[in-house]
Amino acid sequence: MPNRWFLYHTAEDPFAYPAGEGILKLRLFVQNGLQLSCTVIHSDRYDSPGSEVPLQMERIGSAGAYEIHEALVRTETGKCRYLFHARNPAGEYVWFGERGTSENRERAGSFQFAYLHAPAALVLPAWSTGAVVYQIYPSSYNRGTLEGITEKMPYLQKLGVTAIYMTPIFESPSDHKYNTSDYYRIDPGFGTKEDLKQLVDEAHACGIRVLLDAVFNHAGDTFFAFKDVLENGEQSRYKDWFFIRSFPVQQHPSPAYETFANGVAQMPKLNMNHPEVADYMLAVAKYWVREAGIDGWRLDVANEVNPLFWQRFRRELKAEFPELLLIGEIMHASGPWLRGDQFDGGMNYVLREAVLEFFAQQSTGPIRFMEQVLHQEALYNDQANMGMFQLLGSHDTLRFLTACKEGGRGWDRESTAMRRMRLAVFFQMTYTGIPMIYYGDEIGMEGATDPHCRKPMIWQEQEPAGELYKWYKQLISLRRKYDTLQKGSFRPWFTDEVRGVVGYVRRFEQNKTGMIINNSPNHYQLQLHTFCPGKNVLTDLLTGLTIRNTGRILVEIEPFGCLMLN
Amino acid sequence: MPNRWFLYHTAEDPFAYPAGEGILKLRLFVQNGLQLSCTVIHSDRYDSPGSEVPLQMERIGSAGAYEIHEALVRTETGKCRYLFHARNPAGEYVWFGERGTSENRERAGSFQFAYLHAPAALVLPAWSTGAVVYQIYPSSYNRGTLEGITEKMPYLQKLGVTAIYMTPIFESPSDHKYNTSDYYRIDPGFGTKEDLKQLVDEAHACGIRVLLDAVFNHAGDTFFAFKDVLENGEQSRYKDWFFIRSFPVQQHPSPAYETFANGVAQMPKLNMNHPEVADYMLAVAKYWVREAGIDGWRLDVANEVNPLFWQRFRRELKAEFPELLLIGEIMHASGPWLRGDQFDGGMNYVLREAVLEFFAQQSTGPIRFMEQVLHQEALYNDQANMGMFQLLGSHDTLRFLTACKEGGRGWDRESTAMRRMRLAVFFQMTYTGIPMIYYGDEIGMEGATDPHCRKPMIWQEQEPAGELYKWYKQLISLRRKYDTLQKGSFRPWFTDEVRGVVGYVRRFEQNKTGMIINNSPNHYQLQLHTFCPGKNVLTDLLTGLTIRNTGRILVEIEPFGCLMLN
Repeated sequence: MPNRWFLYHTAEDPFAYPAGEGILKLRLFVQNGLQLSCTVIHSDRYDSPGSEVPLQMERIGSAGAYEIHEALVRTETGKCRYLFHARNPAGEYVWFGERGTSENRERAGSFQFAYLHAPAALVLPAWSTGAVVYQIYPSSYNRGTLEGITEKMPYLQKLGVTAIYMTPIFESPSDHKYNTSDYYRIDPGFGTKEDLKQLVDEAHACGIRVLLDAVFNHAGDTFFAFKDVLENGEQSRYKDWFFIRSFPVQQHPSPAYETFANGVAQMPKLNMNHPEVADYMLAVAKYWVREAGIDGWRLDVANEVNPLFWQRFRRELKAEFPELLLIGEIMHASGPWLRGDQFDGGMNYVLREAVLEFFAQQSTGPIRFMEQVLHQEALYNDQANMGMFQLLGSHDTLRFLTACKEGGRGWDRESTAMRRMRLAVFFQMTYTGIPMIYYGDEIGMEGATDPHCRKPMIWQEQEPAGELYKWYKQLISLRRKYDTLQKGSFRPWFTDEVRGVVGYVRRFEQNKTGMIINNSPNHYQLQLHTFCPGKNVLTDLLTGLTIRNTGRILVEIEPFGCLMLN
Repeated sequence: MPNRWFLYHTAEDPFAYPAGEGILKLRLFVQNGLQLSCTVIHSDRYDSPGSEVPLQMERIGSAGAYEIHEALVRTETGKCRYLFHARNPAGEYVWFGERGTSENRERAGSFQFAYLHAPAALVLPAWSTGAVVYQIYPSSYNRGTLEGITEKMPYLQKLGVTAIYMTPIFESPSDHKYNTSDYYRIDPGFGTKEDLKQLVDEAHACGIRVLLDAVFNHAGDTFFAFKDVLENGEQSRYKDWFFIRSFPVQQHPSPAYETFANGVAQMPKLNMNHPEVADYMLAVAKYWVREAGIDGWRLDVANEVNPLFWQRFRRELKAEFPELLLIGEIMHASGPWLRGDQFDGGMNYVLREAVLEFFAQQSTGPIRFMEQVLHQEALYNDQANMGMFQLLGSHDTLRFLTACKEGGRGWDRESTAMRRMRLAVFFQMTYTGIPMIYYGDEIGMEGATDPHCRKPMIWQEQEPAGELYKWYKQLISLRRKYDTLQKGSFRPWFTDEVRGVVGYVRRFEQNKTGMIINNSPNHYQLQLHTFCPGKNVLTDLLTGLTIRNTGRILVEIEPFGCLMLN
């Protein structure tokens, strides 16, 4: 029965949100397998019934158990009333409004997007569009100092990245420095405040932005306030800066206070609900932007800090530094933090899982890969997707090349590892958001999880000559050249489950770029429906080779090869 | 294929939210018709895989195209990782995590509720529990004055209501007063500030709370700031308090500024994004609480005002007046406003539609009625459901008795109208949230939509003697007596689609009250599975009659009759 078709929508982000001046973006989830064609019927909230306009929705694709359908509704008044109409090939149909599904239009009710307050759900700094980020683990990069990093700006500029993100550099007794002793002091092993200024200036001179890592979920147990609590117990004026369970404060064998994760004595959780602590950390965040001119913050364990703090954080920082990029470390679905009032983007580990399975492990095929890509996109509004740091690995994971060597199919999986890594990089650089390269990945460094993934960067006298490095350089350069790759929408083109080939299209305004990835050890000739009617010749931007486009196109693709057609 | 079963969940309100100290409430939507049994598997976020604990979910019921399943997860650390397992009677199953559905547990990923910050998603004033509200349209109540209303406190106290909500009373040229001239002055036709104080004092003496209506979406065109704009045009220092399209400001034939709805010249929309306007209205809201001691605000057209204003509004008002009740007028799905940072409740027109269809129009049967009730409940967290104003009508709708007379089935539908009205009131008074009675409904007043529904209250010398009035009184009194009715959860008990009979249960701690409603013109004897095993005798609280409870119960129910079994 049509009224048992399961459709899901709610009149709020990421299902309904402002996507520009007078534009309401609508997203609808539809139970898969029903082959429904969907229309949204909309009008001003106060117009009388009968004035509604129908708009055909676009079927974006399957995301597994459900399909994603979308539409852009233009609204002059910003007050929108709408409902959906879904029809199957047999002509059966259902209406879907805020009262659910019904074969009777009145009974379905209407959704209401009461008022479009903002030009877009989320507004990102302009410079983040087209950015390519490079993550540095400072103690392992170059001589383990800021000066060492500064020295490598020409290297980074040549590689083509437009921003670096450094894990914490403030005083801390550990190598990773996620247990901060002093938020106002550069770790003496790394250098001085002057060194940081020098680094930022040099980076800016090379067209490279700089992001730092702030740890506000917890401090180190060597942080002055926590030391005071250890010393003075209940008498400490800082006792409420943390979550202490009993006094005097016991640290071992198990800490008598809340910590990062559970029982990590050297990382006492900060009480960010306390106005003094919130004020203190906000001042820290402003201080380094003012003093060193940094371009953004990556916020550690952001999802365990009270969202009310992040709301204030964004409000105050963006008011003073509108071009600052704010990225939350949330290793999972990050929707609630990316609706305009908190972060500009997150660290996209959810996407990484899908990329890992398809390219490194080869444990999924094109269909599931594409479904997973669409599934995670559908968690966010379009702007948030533009702000996601799309990573293949980080200091918290094994390196991607290592994953490729461990995974894959067939007796020759080790020999194909590098080629699968290249495909993953190809996907990363042709997908939406902000690609983030983990230092050393570009030269094929290997390493299992921490500590192996944090080993020193390998430097040679000359510019690296390896294929992988050149591949990164070429792809970064193409990404920076083509608006389609930087700003375009992402759409599945085809999935060939049997052959292990997948295609997708990036579109910006009238331009389209089509990607084909052959995630198999076989050479293929493929006959495909074009993604780009009306253009007689397509060029593979990777090789310069041209292909005739007659509505159908015939492509040759190598084992673990790829094409970028424009 | 199980991995095509459509389940929906996201780790945020109203699908996941704190429901008390260390308690995470989870709600899962499951495609209907699959007969799935669902389990949630949970652990601390940082515990290693294998430490998860399974918890059987409760199937709450069908909400149309989907079923609602719920669970309460206890978490000591407040950091929760979980995924769902759904199994059909044939033993086929699927895992469901943040990466979607998969037959492979790893591939499904896990949902993460990163950190439980608050004891509950939303915290309501204690006095609102068990409240029964009575809406007054001041110009039509008693002599059209505040003094007139004050005089009627004994009447209201006898009826049993615990709060009144008055539509606007501030100076305004209209009868409804939704176009405010002066937010600081009581309309002279209604009286003075002293009269309001008197009213509030008298109400409080009778155990009755007082809510006023604030219109912050728009002002009247006689509001001083707008008059200044009309006079001084672009030179007015108030020009940015509104959304003026061109100067000099034209009002007719169509206003050159944004208004309430579209083109309502006498209601210019306020620019609440302007700090001066926000400050002004916030001061107004505080002023009347301080000056007159009112107990709450009902906020007009709340969904068209910037939510950032409401966040500040709640923050500042609750800091000063923690017991103030804040109700947003949102005539549709109100989820985004009821997550703890804005309102305590809304005006539940979505529920009213379901009640109207079932009782007044009799155009739906028990199944759809119950599905609609559950559907709207599932839009909100539990606390928000407790704060909803459950109304049968208001100054913006036709009166419920009139709807009953116009609707219904059969030649004798007019003769059953009153009985159907009584059933609707029975449902209202035995359902969750805060029942709201529209003045005059309790004595059977009739009236089509505005202006007919706003006619003067009918007063008699004596206390009203009608059946309907007595019915209201009895039900209010029972509601105020039984915790189950005030605070209990709501669960479907049975639906008898053929006979038109529906049953549901309210449960609070170990106590249960079971309701049966016969929405048909027939007399029935019904054999039912009990809702309350272990109790040998049940009492109908309406009549005092007792029924044997042997696991099955046998009830007699009159045409359009009902039972309240305890």
